[in-house]
Amino acid sequence: MKRPVIIGVMGGGSATAADMADAYFLGQRIAGEGWVLLNGGRNAGIMAASAKGAAEAGGLTIGILPDDHDRHAAPHVQIPVLTGIGSARNCINILTSHVVVACAGGMGTLSEIALALKYGRPVVLLNFRGGDFFEGYADRGLIRSVETVAETAGAIKTFLSRR
Amino acid sequence: MKRPVIIGVMGGGSATAADMADAYFLGQRIAGEGWVLLNGGRNAGIMAASAKGAAEAGGLTIGILPDDHDRHAAPHVQIPVLTGIGSARNCINILTSHVVVACAGGMGTLSEIALALKYGRPVVLLNFRGGDFFEGYADRGLIRSVETVAETAGAIKTFLSRR
Amino acid sequence: MKRPVIIGVMGGGSATAADMADAYFLGQRIAGEGWVLLNGGRNAGIMAASAKGAAEAGGLTIGILPDDHDRHAAPHVQIPVLTGIGSARNCINILTSHVVVACAGGMGTLSEIALALKYGRPVVLLNFRGGDFFEGYADRGLIRSVETVAETAGAIKTFLSRR
Amino acid sequence: MKRPVIIGVMGGGSATAADMADAYFLGQRIAGEGWVLLNGGRNAGIMAASAKGAAEAGGLTIGILPDDHDRHAAPHVQIPVLTGIGSARNCINILTSHVVVACAGGMGTLSEIALALKYGRPVVLLNFRGGDFFEGYADRGLIRSVETVAETAGAIKTFLSRR
Repeated sequence: MKRPVIIGVMGGGSATAADMADAYFLGQRIAGEGWVLLNGGRNAGIMAASAKGAAEAGGLTIGILPDDHDRHAAPHVQIPVLTGIGSARNCINILTSHVVVACAGGMGTLSEIALALKYGRPVVLLNFRGGDFFEGYADRGLIRSVETVAETAGAIKTFLSRR
Repeated sequence: MKRPVIIGVMGGGSATAADMADAYFLGQRIAGEGWVLLNGGRNAGIMAASAKGAAEAGGLTIGILPDDHDRHAAPHVQIPVLTGIGSARNCINILTSHVVVACAGGMGTLSEIALALKYGRPVVLLNFRGGDFFEGYADRGLIRSVETVAETAGAIKTFLSRR
Repeated sequence: MKRPVIIGVMGGGSATAADMADAYFLGQRIAGEGWVLLNGGRNAGIMAASAKGAAEAGGLTIGILPDDHDRHAAPHVQIPVLTGIGSARNCINILTSHVVVACAGGMGTLSEIALALKYGRPVVLLNFRGGDFFEGYADRGLIRSVETVAETAGAIKTFLSRR
Repeated sequence: MKRPVIIGVMGGGSATAADMADAYFLGQRIAGEGWVLLNGGRNAGIMAASAKGAAEAGGLTIGILPDDHDRHAAPHVQIPVLTGIGSARNCINILTSHVVVACAGGMGTLSEIALALKYGRPVVLLNFRGGDFFEGYADRGLIRSVETVAETAGAIKTFLSRR
């Protein structure tokens, strides 16, 4: 049995309309490629938008929620994994994803990028302001900055081809 | 969007042939009912057998693994959720399941039954030796002991009808 | 540098006056022996009483809290470890303790006894209704049932002498 | 009962001699002020050095270990809290500390800075290369960059005075 590719989409609970649109179309694209979308599961920002895009395109969506209940789960998350462990679940988001896309976000998203690099998961920064922290990792080929959904899909495919 | 029912199947990493067969047919039945099977994900005992049954019957199988890698994941677990949190993941198994079935198992399974009752998740004991701990909960209708896969499916349906 | 012995005291958030008194005197005894007391940290039941006993006798008390804040911490817990991971913290209680004492409690306490036996931590049941689950483990010398604080201290010393 | 102040010292498992010396003297200073030192507990880098400094100056040292055993605990960690949850324990480090000091470190340390700012814990960067991520937070007074142990102690006191 061949397991599906899982793409983690990280990003803030509040986001601009442009970032939300990117997340929506990224979700669509992920489903269109036959990949599973995984995110933080909450009904807000990048999480809600990316799940909606993927689910409406017929994809499977998995949300790793910080809560011990599903009252804050995004409606388009089909499988809400209820962890009850708060932000400690950020590790699960990263470990479970084959490639991580970091959309616009704040400190939670930054913690996830850091954990991804620590654990060797490739990261695509889609309009995430990355500063100069990650230069060494860019050299090592674990991280790439892009500006569009099309470039994101291309970067994911490059990373997947190296697995 | 209507979310699928998730049935958690707990049980030991080592099990008798008879218990493995029960777990396999239980997995088949879960898939046949259109439910998602969730378990602890490892390639051993009840976990491997129940995932095989469900996957071979065309169902979706999710494994919540204790490890931070997938080397010990059961081959029929389609979505290995890599938690990296060891037995602390037992809580996630319980919280994420709508109904929990406890097959034959040891102390790990016992901890999951206890957590299920603590969190109000209904439990079906399928040939799990339950002692007298759970009598009070049986009175409250949260737990039921059965001996066959058919009875298990019936008990799950009764619990689901009360949600 | 020699590390102190850590004794975990588990038990319910609601308890009878007699069980609370036992927990208080057990805390006193633990401190009197020079051991560190560890518990679940909340300001309720066995947790509050055992911390009070140990702190008033001059001992060090550590509470492993389920919450991400200290508003529900027992006043006599000197070091509130804020986990934010809910009942997943039960594993930490067990792993960190050299010997576990289970006082009267419910399903949370039962999950901790089960995890202790799974991880090879010796358990003293102080008026915890143990049923027949644990017989096999009693044979292996990992668990003992007692009725008084004095017997508890004796059982702890026996277990510690075997480390 | 008044609880002690807990200062979290984060930093890499490998570090230069200069950074190790800073961590050692920071540990000394923390103990000298009567504060408890908390760190990630492993016998490496900033963790080992800061625990040694604090313990040798008579302070209490608590290590929140990723492992489910104490074989990698730093010798000067007096209370090894065994979590068994890997890097998910980074959240516990942050939540439990009143002020966080980030010494030289890599992605694990960066994830802890991010989590601290997310949860509102003040952060002192002691020769941690901070890039420009944290500018907005500096404006809000949650983060400060310093170059010496003396400045670190001063910054901690400023943050503590605002609690």
